[in-house]
Amino acid sequence: MDFKLYVITNQNIAQGKDNLEVVKEAIIGGADIIQLREKDMSTRNLVNMGNELKVITKSAEVPLIVNDRVDIALAIDADGVHLGQDDLPIKEARKMMGNDKIIGISTHSLEQAIEAAAMGADYIGVGPVFPTQTKPNYNPVGLELVEKVSQRVEIPFVAIGGIKLDNIHEVIKAGAKRVAVVSGIVGVEDIESAARSYYKNLIKCL
Amino acid sequence: MDFKLYVITNQNIAQGKDNLEVVKEAIIGGADIIQLREKDMSTRNLVNMGNELKVITKSAEVPLIVNDRVDIALAIDADGVHLGQDDLPIKEARKMMGNDKIIGISTHSLEQAIEAAAMGADYIGVGPVFPTQTKPNYNPVGLELVEKVSQRVEIPFVAIGGIKLDNIHEVIKAGAKRVAVVSGIVGVEDIESAARSYYKNLIKCL
Ligand code: NI
Repeated sequence: MDFKLYVITNQNIAQGKDNLEVVKEAIIGGADIIQLREKDMSTRNLVNMGNELKVITKSAEVPLIVNDRVDIALAIDADGVHLGQDDLPIKEARKMMGNDKIIGISTHSLEQAIEAAAMGADYIGVGPVFPTQTKPNYNPVGLELVEKVSQRVEIPFVAIGGIKLDNIHEVIKAGAKRVAVVSGIVGVEDIESAARSYYKNLIKCL
Repeated sequence: MDFKLYVITNQNIAQGKDNLEVVKEAIIGGADIIQLREKDMSTRNLVNMGNELKVITKSAEVPLIVNDRVDIALAIDADGVHLGQDDLPIKEARKMMGNDKIIGISTHSLEQAIEAAAMGADYIGVGPVFPTQTKPNYNPVGLELVEKVSQRVEIPFVAIGGIKLDNIHEVIKAGAKRVAVVSGIVGVEDIESAARSYYKNLIKCL
């Protein structure tokens, strides 16, 4: 499993498009991993949406990761689960998911990054790098943490939080090889073209 | 597995008591099954609370059921899970939970009750019997549904929704042998004595 452009859904900010459309366009534009992250949806609706998304991601051979919910990831046979520091501990999640599934962990400090790697995370998220509307209550960790993690942690990490077309080169320069995007792709009119621009800027800087 | 008085947590209405205290007092008063149902809590906090509650319920030999979240039920090795019509389908839940765990299903019509029984539910909830503050958007199903279910469904069912000390005898007369209570026990000052009163009124009418 590796990836460059990680797109995370947010039905609340999608410009009148449903997640099927959002994910389809993002993948065409270059997203090579998708996270289903909807905080206000019932379990049943998440399962139904996840099953629909899986048809798209599977045919595109793009991993589908479920935010927080191991039960939903198992129910839809997703490729993995992404856990925040307030979600299930990775040890419990691994027991349920097995070794073949991807487990990603959000980290907000070098300590958390090292711990997640030690606990067997397949990848970690590092952020929020910049201030972001998606997580307004978090203090940005800055490019400093990206740099430290790139030097100290061996497993793949993805930079997340406020990454825009015009700051992505700084993030890559700081050591990131993967970026995660929500509003910059999911919240714009032309999702496909936004994804394509992110992807281009990303590989240009690598 | 059988029970008479099913108490469901709701930290938001507990009179300054944490759920450990709530559950302890409810069990002393007569609750013989407990459901952890907290809609605004992070997964991590639910796991931690569930693990703490399990110490109490286990030593009292009272089943602990987790609302909605199969992943949390598995993580804390709870006795079962309770699923609403908007939660995981029972088929998926059973695959994850196995046959030894309890699966309960909320039903709001005779059709749903029969379907849940057919799908292998261990018990069903039937309600809301009366109008209730916990689910203000549901139309009460009335004593009529309690009566129909008691005549047509073989698996254990528990009546829920607006059941008070002064209407419990009607519910039992309509055919219920078990009642579930939230605010009438969890939301009062003296939880133990409320649970005891419910229990007494319940068995008096059986
Ligand atoms: Ni009576």
